[in-house]
Amino acid sequence: MPIPVKAYAAQSPTSPLAPYDFSRRDLREDDVEIDILYCGVCHSDLHTARADWGEAFSIYPVVPGHEIIGRVRNVGKNVTKHKVGDLVGVGCMVDSCRECSPCQHGLEQYCENGMTGTYSSRDRRDGSVTQGGYSTAVVVCEDFVLRVPENLDTKAVAPLLCAGITTYSPLRHWGVKAGSKVAVVGLGGLGHMAIKLAKAMGAEVSLFTRSPGKEADAHRLGADRVILSTDEAQMQAAGNQFDLIIDTVPYDHDLKPYVPTLALDGTLVLVGLVGDIGNTVSTVPLIMGRRSIAGSVIGGIPETQEMLDFCGKHNIVPDVEMIDMQTINEAYERMLKSDVKYRFVIDLASLKG
Amino acid sequence: MPIPVKAYAAQSPTSPLAPYDFSRRDLREDDVEIDILYCGVCHSDLHTARADWGEAFSIYPVVPGHEIIGRVRNVGKNVTKHKVGDLVGVGCMVDSCRECSPCQHGLEQYCENGMTGTYSSRDRRDGSVTQGGYSTAVVVCEDFVLRVPENLDTKAVAPLLCAGITTYSPLRHWGVKAGSKVAVVGLGGLGHMAIKLAKAMGAEVSLFTRSPGKEADAHRLGADRVILSTDEAQMQAAGNQFDLIIDTVPYDHDLKPYVPTLALDGTLVLVGLVGDIGNTVSTVPLIMGRRSIAGSVIGGIPETQEMLDFCGKHNIVPDVEMIDMQTINEAYERMLKSDVKYRFVIDLASLKG
Ligand SMILES: [Zn+2]
Ligand SMILES: [Zn+2]
Ligand SMILES: [Zn+2]
Ligand SMILES: [Zn+2]
Repeated sequence: MPIPVKAYAAQSPTSPLAPYDFSRRDLREDDVEIDILYCGVCHSDLHTARADWGEAFSIYPVVPGHEIIGRVRNVGKNVTKHKVGDLVGVGCMVDSCRECSPCQHGLEQYCENGMTGTYSSRDRRDGSVTQGGYSTAVVVCEDFVLRVPENLDTKAVAPLLCAGITTYSPLRHWGVKAGSKVAVVGLGGLGHMAIKLAKAMGAEVSLFTRSPGKEADAHRLGADRVILSTDEAQMQAAGNQFDLIIDTVPYDHDLKPYVPTLALDGTLVLVGLVGDIGNTVSTVPLIMGRRSIAGSVIGGIPETQEMLDFCGKHNIVPDVEMIDMQTINEAYERMLKSDVKYRFVIDLASLKG
Repeated sequence: MPIPVKAYAAQSPTSPLAPYDFSRRDLREDDVEIDILYCGVCHSDLHTARADWGEAFSIYPVVPGHEIIGRVRNVGKNVTKHKVGDLVGVGCMVDSCRECSPCQHGLEQYCENGMTGTYSSRDRRDGSVTQGGYSTAVVVCEDFVLRVPENLDTKAVAPLLCAGITTYSPLRHWGVKAGSKVAVVGLGGLGHMAIKLAKAMGAEVSLFTRSPGKEADAHRLGADRVILSTDEAQMQAAGNQFDLIIDTVPYDHDLKPYVPTLALDGTLVLVGLVGDIGNTVSTVPLIMGRRSIAGSVIGGIPETQEMLDFCGKHNIVPDVEMIDMQTINEAYERMLKSDVKYRFVIDLASLKG
C-alpha cells in the first residue's frame, strides 16, 4: 500500500513552495519507512526548487530536503540494519549503482554511474522521481539510512547530513589531526561546521572572513584566530601556514588571496562553489609551494556514519534556527542574505498537525 | 686565486648571447671546482636572458645554464663528498638557507628564505652574482653537487638536472608506481622525460597532443597511447582514468579538457606554466571527483640524486641535439618554435678551443 504524505513542493522554477500531498512507495523488502521529525534547509534545496543549475536537475514538482532526521516506523521484511523506533537520518543520497569502484569503496557520492539524489532524481528500480524531506515521511533503502546518536540534541542534528559531512569528509581525506593548521573561508552553514569539526579533530583553526563583526561568534564556535581577508597586512602575516583550507563560499570568488596562505604541500579544497572560477588563477603559488586546489562533495555512507558517531562522541551539533514548514519561503529569502545562524531546520510537527 | 673562465652572456634583455670572460671565486673550504663538459639549454635560460619574468629575476650580465655536467678539477680542503676526476652535475640550485623546515627535509627548492639559483642569483655568503653553465668551469658548494652515473651517455645526461628532476619529482610525490595511469600534456623537453620516467616506474603512459604527427615518436619514447586533444571523441573516451597528469605546457592554455580525464582523486600537476591561467577553471570536475590541480618545481638535492641513480639503473637519458656554444642564439630561436628533439645540449669543448 502506498504511504500518503503531506509535503511542501515547488511546482515550477518560479513558484514558491506550497503544500503538496502525494504518496511514498509501498515498502520493498530492503526499505525503511521513516517518520520525519526534522529536516535541515540547504542551499541546494533552493537551487533545485528554482532550477538554478538548469532544468535537467529539477524534476517538478520538487520536494526538497536532504538533511532528514526521523524515527523508523516500519521496515521491509529483509531489513536488518534498522528497527522500528530507531533514530535515523538520510542525507543527500538514497542509492547508487553499488558496483563501480567508488561504490565498492564506500564512496557512493562519486559513483561512476551517478548516485541517486534524495530528491529530483530517478529511482534506480522503478524510475519514479525521488522526493525529499520537506514531508512527513520518507521511504529509503536501509543501506542509505544512517544511525543517529541518541545523546545529541535531536532537532539540531539534521544539518550534519549535508553541511556536516561536506566538511568532515575533506578534513579526514586530507589528514587533519591534532596540531594541523586549518583555515575556513566563509562562516555559514558549512563554515561553522568546518570550524567545530576541525577543532574537535585537534586542529588549530582560523577563519577567513570579510566582515569584522564575526569574530566573537567564530571564537565561540571554536576558531583560534579570525583573519580579516580584506586587511592586506593580516593576509600578508598569514602566509605559508595552513595545511588545509576549507573554502565554503557558495558563489564565485577570487582564490588569489588564499592560496599563498597554504603551507608547502597544502591544499585549498572547494566545497561550496559549483561553477566557474571567474577570477584568474595563478600557477605561481601552486608551483612554488607544491600547493593544490581541489574539490570535494559530501561523503560516502560509511564516512557519514563515522561522522555521526564522531559528533555523538564529541557532542557536536550545528547551530540551528527552528522554523515551521509554512515559513519556508521566508527562510529561503533570509538564507540568500546569509541571515541565519547557521542553518534553518524545519520542525515537521508543523505539517502533521 | 680567482679562476678565469670563458662564457656566453646576455648583457641586456635585448642583446643576443655573446662571448664573455670573467672569473669564478677562489675555492672555499667546501667548494668543488668543475670543468664543465656539457650544459643543457632550458626555457628558463632564455626567459632569464631576456628578462621575461621581470628585471628582478635577471642580473646582467646573465650567463645562463642550469643543466651542468662536468668533472671535478679541484676541491676545497673540507670537501668529502666529491674528489678530483668524479663525474658530477649541478642543477637549478647552488645553495639554500639550510635551516628552514623544507631545507631540513631535503626540499631545498621550496626553501622558505629562497633557494640560491645557479645563475642570476646572489651568493648567500659574499653577495656576488651567480653565473651558470654556459661557461668552461663553475665553482659550487659540494652539498649542491650531484654524482652522475658513469654508465650513461655523458653528453645526454645534462637535461636530467632540470627537465629530468622537474618531471621525476611529481611522479614520485604523487605516488606513481607499477600500474598507475599517467598522462603527459605536451611533448617537449619536459614531456619526453615525463614519458620515459613514468614508463620506467611501471606506469601505463598516455600522451595528450594537439598534433597527429607525434604518435610514432611518442610510442618510441615509451607512451602506450597517444590521445589527440583536438579530437572530441578521443577526449570523451579518455574520461575518468588518469591518476596523474603531468602538464608540461610552458604557455597559458585551457585546463578544461584535461581535468575530467582524471580518475577519482586524480591530480593534474602543472610543471611548465609559470603565470596566470587565463581560461576559466570550473570547480565541477574538481568537486565531483575530488580531483586536484597542483604545481611542482624541480626537486630537492636528495631526490635529484635519487633520480640520477634511477636513470643510471634504468639507462635513461634525454634525447638531445648537440650544439656548439657559438650557435646558442639560433638554438633559442628554434627552441621557441619547439623545433628540437627534445633538448639542446651545449658541448663546452666548443668554447675551450
Ligand atoms: Zn545540501
Ligand atoms: Zn557506483
Ligand atoms: Zn630549467
Ligand atoms: Zn631554507
